[in-house]
Amino acid sequence: MSHPSNRKQDNHKIDWHLPTVSSSASAHHMSRELFVLTYGALVAQLCKDYETDDEVNKSLDKMGYNIGIRLVEDFLAHSGIKKCRSYNETADIIAKVAFKMYLGITPSVTCSSQSRNEFSLILEKNPLVDFVEELPAGRSSLCFCNLLCGVIRGALEMIHLPADVRFIQDRLKGDDVTEIGILFLRKIEDKKPKRNK
Amino acid sequence: MSHPSNRKQDNHKIDWHLPTVSSSASAHHMSRELFVLTYGALVAQLCKDYETDDEVNKSLDKMGYNIGIRLVEDFLAHSGIKKCRSYNETADIIAKVAFKMYLGITPSVTCSSQSRNEFSLILEKNPLVDFVEELPAGRSSLCFCNLLCGVIRGALEMIHLPADVRFIQDRLKGDDVTEIGILFLRKIEDKKPKRNK
Repeated sequence: MSHPSNRKQDNHKIDWHLPTVSSSASAHHMSRELFVLTYGALVAQLCKDYETDDEVNKSLDKMGYNIGIRLVEDFLAHSGIKKCRSYNETADIIAKVAFKMYLGITPSVTCSSQSRNEFSLILEKNPLVDFVEELPAGRSSLCFCNLLCGVIRGALEMIHLPADVRFIQDRLKGDDVTEIGILFLRKIEDKKPKRNK
Repeated sequence: MSHPSNRKQDNHKIDWHLPTVSSSASAHHMSRELFVLTYGALVAQLCKDYETDDEVNKSLDKMGYNIGIRLVEDFLAHSGIKKCRSYNETADIIAKVAFKMYLGITPSVTCSSQSRNEFSLILEKNPLVDFVEELPAGRSSLCFCNLLCGVIRGALEMIHLPADVRFIQDRLKGDDVTEIGILFLRKIEDKKPKRNK
């Protein structure tokens, strides 16, 4: 469920359309359970490797970053998206196209600052923790899904949109929802769409 | 492409039907590129952690095993498959239903022994190495996708079909195809389907 009441995008009419998934893209589809369990194995391995949660979180973020800088090419090729004209549009595409394509879910988007460069993705359901009941013992500061933040950060950097991406709330830590915050670091003006000449 | 000339299953008419993917199952679909890149990160981490290829291979197999024993439940729930009556049928279901569901590909199956308990899955294309051009330097004995063997082994064990599963050929090592061998360890008689009373 989205939270339309929290969304400050009424004055930003989005005129891109969700791309239909091409037949070549659908040939790349898989059930996500294998991914989710493999991701769990990766986190478990890092918890073996590193003593502190902070090290594990940083490692997941760094791995995600390296994935994001490669994944963005695949995303642009399969989504058919050319250009975002505003941070708002970018955040919406991450939630409605990228999350849908790679995780099969659509977080809702809220704009959390007056300066309109700070957004939150609200995940009512987080498939990455489908098989996780709670954080491992002694790992209360672990950001289990921190890879996602790195992926978003890496992908955005490749399209010249440096951003700070981090978990703000996490159901695994007892919060009501899982919330990923995206703070775009460079202030750009939202451009009006050009009229066709 | 399958290799019908190599298949010894003409006398084993398979009468199960490929299940249609239910709407709840399709809700769990995702594009596999994120998985493939995450898997690459996992293998890279294990290569950091362990000195020898053998240790990395064993670790991947063990992780896969732990994934398989959990994934089998998801597989049975979403595929609607109840029971396999022969090793031949089991190998076909692994290739045509499980691989399709979890990796989006359908390997061909060949039976490689007279005793009909040894099968090969031939992967013309292996999405797990989509982003891998060659094995890492000094890692010539690495079975990059060994997690898959563990997954198959774990899932089979949970349905009381202990098996030895290993890579026989691997394109990453210069072979023409990638081949996963499955040797069922307990000899069972193929049962004839019961007539309805």
